[in-house]
Amino acid sequence: MEIVSILLMLLVLFVLARVGNRIFEHFGIPGLIGEILVGILIANVAIGGSTLLDFLDIEIPAPGSGHAGTNYSILYAAAEIGVIFLLFSVGLETKVKELLGVGRSAMLVAVLGVVIPFFLGFAYIEFTDSNFHHAMFLAAAMVATSVGITARVIKDMHLMDKLESRIIIGAAVIDDILGMIVLAIVKGVAGSDSGISVIGVIEVIAVAFVFVIAAILFAKSAVPRIYLWNERRVKKAREEGRTPASFNMLALAIAICLFMSWLAESIGLAAIIGAFLAGMMFAEHAWEWKLDQKFETVTAVFISFFFVHVGMQVDLGDLGSTSVIISAVVVILLAVVGKYIGCGIGAKMGDRSTSRESCNIIGIGMVPRGEVGIIVASIGLNTIVEGAPALSSSLYAVIVLMAVATTVIAPPILSKLYRRKYPAEYTITADDRI
Amino acid sequence: MEIVSILLMLLVLFVLARVGNRIFEHFGIPGLIGEILVGILIANVAIGGSTLLDFLDIEIPAPGSGHAGTNYSILYAAAEIGVIFLLFSVGLETKVKELLGVGRSAMLVAVLGVVIPFFLGFAYIEFTDSNFHHAMFLAAAMVATSVGITARVIKDMHLMDKLESRIIIGAAVIDDILGMIVLAIVKGVAGSDSGISVIGVIEVIAVAFVFVIAAILFAKSAVPRIYLWNERRVKKAREEGRTPASFNMLALAIAICLFMSWLAESIGLAAIIGAFLAGMMFAEHAWEWKLDQKFETVTAVFISFFFVHVGMQVDLGDLGSTSVIISAVVVILLAVVGKYIGCGIGAKMGDRSTSRESCNIIGIGMVPRGEVGIIVASIGLNTIVEGAPALSSSLYAVIVLMAVATTVIAPPILSKLYRRKYPAEYTITADDRI
Repeated sequence: MEIVSILLMLLVLFVLARVGNRIFEHFGIPGLIGEILVGILIANVAIGGSTLLDFLDIEIPAPGSGHAGTNYSILYAAAEIGVIFLLFSVGLETKVKELLGVGRSAMLVAVLGVVIPFFLGFAYIEFTDSNFHHAMFLAAAMVATSVGITARVIKDMHLMDKLESRIIIGAAVIDDILGMIVLAIVKGVAGSDSGISVIGVIEVIAVAFVFVIAAILFAKSAVPRIYLWNERRVKKAREEGRTPASFNMLALAIAICLFMSWLAESIGLAAIIGAFLAGMMFAEHAWEWKLDQKFETVTAVFISFFFVHVGMQVDLGDLGSTSVIISAVVVILLAVVGKYIGCGIGAKMGDRSTSRESCNIIGIGMVPRGEVGIIVASIGLNTIVEGAPALSSSLYAVIVLMAVATTVIAPPILSKLYRRKYPAEYTITADDRI
Repeated sequence: MEIVSILLMLLVLFVLARVGNRIFEHFGIPGLIGEILVGILIANVAIGGSTLLDFLDIEIPAPGSGHAGTNYSILYAAAEIGVIFLLFSVGLETKVKELLGVGRSAMLVAVLGVVIPFFLGFAYIEFTDSNFHHAMFLAAAMVATSVGITARVIKDMHLMDKLESRIIIGAAVIDDILGMIVLAIVKGVAGSDSGISVIGVIEVIAVAFVFVIAAILFAKSAVPRIYLWNERRVKKAREEGRTPASFNMLALAIAICLFMSWLAESIGLAAIIGAFLAGMMFAEHAWEWKLDQKFETVTAVFISFFFVHVGMQVDLGDLGSTSVIISAVVVILLAVVGKYIGCGIGAKMGDRSTSRESCNIIGIGMVPRGEVGIIVASIGLNTIVEGAPALSSSLYAVIVLMAVATTVIAPPILSKLYRRKYPAEYTITADDRI
C-alpha cells in the first residue's frame, strides 16, 4: 500500500480522461466517448511489451476472481461510486409528479421503445449464440435511452418547447424507470441460485416491481410529509426563539444514496437502481437544497474513473474476428432500427395526427444509448453465473461499440431533422448567437 | 471484491461518523472529535468477541506490511483523498499576498508559537524515551494550530474586527506554512535512506524549503500571468465572434492537487504539503471560480473517512498503562503551555503596548491543534523507518488525545476571555441573536 502509487494512478487516469473528454467535446462528440477511448487505449496499447496499466500497477483480475491488487480495488470502488452518484443525479431530475402526469404519446413512445429493442436484441442472440444470459443482458443494454445527449441537442437549438421535444423528454422519464425494471429483472435472473425457472423469473420480476413501486410510493407520499414535518419543526423553533437544528442535506442524501444502493444490491438487483430511486426521492426539493449542483460536483470527481474503467475492460483482440465485427454491425443496426421504429410507432399510436416528420424526430431522438447501455454491459461482465460472467468479453465489446455508435450517429441526424421542420426558428436562433 | 461489502462499509462508516459529528456539534464541541471517537469505538468495542471492523470486513494491516484487504485499501484511499482535499481547501484560503503582508506581531506570534512547542515536545521525548524519530514527530504534531476552530468561535461572537482576532488569523496563515515546513523536514528525515546524519538533515531541509518557496513564488508570479493570458484569450475570442474554449476549473484544480500531492510524496515530503501548496496557487481566484464551495462539497464526502480511520488506529489497550496516561497528561500540558507562552510572548514582542489581556486571548486562541496535529501523527504512524513505524502506537494515541484535548479546552476559555475584554459588544450581539 503505497500512497505514491495510488496518487500516481488517480492522477494519470484523471488527467488522461479529462484530455480525452475535451478533445471529443471540441469536435462536438459527447466527452464520455473520449473517456472510454482513453480506457481502451490504456489497456490495449503496449510499448515495449507493457501497457500503461502495468506502469500504473493496475492488474485487472479475471472476471469472477475474488482477488485484486490495491490499486485496482481503489479504481474499481471509484468507478462504482462514480456511476452510483451519476444515477442518483439522474434520479434527482425524475420528479414523481411528472412521471405520473406524462401524456399518452410519451408513455407509448417509451413502452414501445423499450419492448421492440429488447425483443430484437434478445431474438438476435438466441438465434446466433443461444446463451440465455447473453441474450438477456444484450437486450437490456439495448433498452435504455440516454436522453441527456438528445436534450443537449434540443437545448442548443432552443427548441425545448416544441411538441416533439416535450414527447421525447416525457418518454425519457418513463424510459428510465422501465430501463431500471428491465435491468433489475435481468440481473436478478442471472443472480438467482435456482437457475432459470419460470417461478424464479416470476419471483425476480415481483421483487423488482415491488422495490421500484415501493420507492415511487415512498417518494410520492412519505417524502412530502417528512418535508412538511420538517418545515413545521423549523417554524415552531423560530417562533419560540430557538435556532432550529438543521440537517446537512448533502450528507443525508449521500447516506440514503449509499443505503438504497446497498439494499438494491443485497436483494439481487443492481446498486445503480437503488441510487436512481434514492435520487428520485429527493427530486422535488433538489433545487432548494442545491443537491443537483452539489452532486454534479461530486460526480465530476468520480465519473471519469467509471468510463475509463469501462474502456479498460474492452479487449481489442476480441474485435479481430470477422464474426464479432459482423455481430457489432448487426447489433448497431438493430439498436438504431429498434428505437426508431418502436418510438415512431408509439408516437403515431399515441396521437393519430402526429406527422411523419414528427415521428421521425421522436424516433431518432430516442436512439442514443450513451452511458446507460454501457452500465448494463459492465454489470453483465461483472455478474457471475455458474462460474462465468453473464456476458462474454466479445459481446461486452460489441455493446460498448453499440452505445458509442448510437450516441455519435443520432445527434447530427436529429439536428438536421429539427432544422428541416423548424427552419425559421433555427435561422433566428443562429442569427441570435452571432 | 464484492460491491455489496464495499457499499456496506462506506454506508456504515459514513452514517456513524455523521451521527458522531452531529452529537458533538450539538454540545458545542467540534464535530471531528465525534468522528474520531466513532473510529475508536468501532475498532475497540467488541461484542461477542468481534468488533464492527470484523463485521465490515476491514482488516487493519500491521504498520509497514505491504498487504491489505480490498475494503481496507478502499477506506485508506478515501481517507487519504479526504485529507488531501481538506488541505487543498486550507490552501485555498491562504492568499500569498496576505502571507507576505502579514504584520510584525502576527509573524512573531506564529514563529514563537511554532518554535517553543516544537522544542518542548522534542525535549520531552528525548529525555524520556530518547527515540529521535518519536521526538521529531511528536514535536511536529505540537506545532500546527488548527485556526478553523478558533475562527469559528470568533465569528460566532462577531468579533472578527478586533485586534486580537486579526493577529490570530494572520499568525495562522504563517503558522500553516511553518507547520508544512516542519512536517516536510520531519518526514524527510525519517524517510531518507542515509539515516540520521547532519548532511542528510540539511539536504532534507533544503528540499523542503525549495519546494515550499518554489510553490509560493509560482503562486505569486506565474499564476497571475497565466490568469491574465487566459483573460486576454477569452476577450480576443469574444471580439472575433468566436466562443472561447473554456476550462473546467474544478477538473484543473483536482488535477493540480493530485499532481502536487504526488510530487511532494515522491520527493519524500508528505502528500498533504503538496495539496496545501496547490490550493494556495488557486487562492486568489477561488471565489471567482466557486472552487471553495465545490471543494467543500467534495471534501464533505471524503473527510469523515479520514477522521474515522484516525480513530480506528488508536488502540485503547495502549492507554491502560500508567506511564502512557502520565505521558498524555504531560504532552497535553506542554501543548497548551507551549502555544500559550510562545504566542503570548510573540504578541508582546511584536508590539510592546499589547495588553496582558490581549496576549492571553492570542495565546489561548492559538492552542487548538485539531486535525493538523492528528494528520502529522497519522503520517508518523504510516512512515516506516528501519522496519518500524516512525511513531509508536502509544505515542500515536497520546497525540490524538492531545489534539482532542486542546481542541475541546480552548474554545470555552477563549470565549470567556473575549467576553471579559469586550463585554459591551458581546451583550449587543447576544441580544441581536434572540
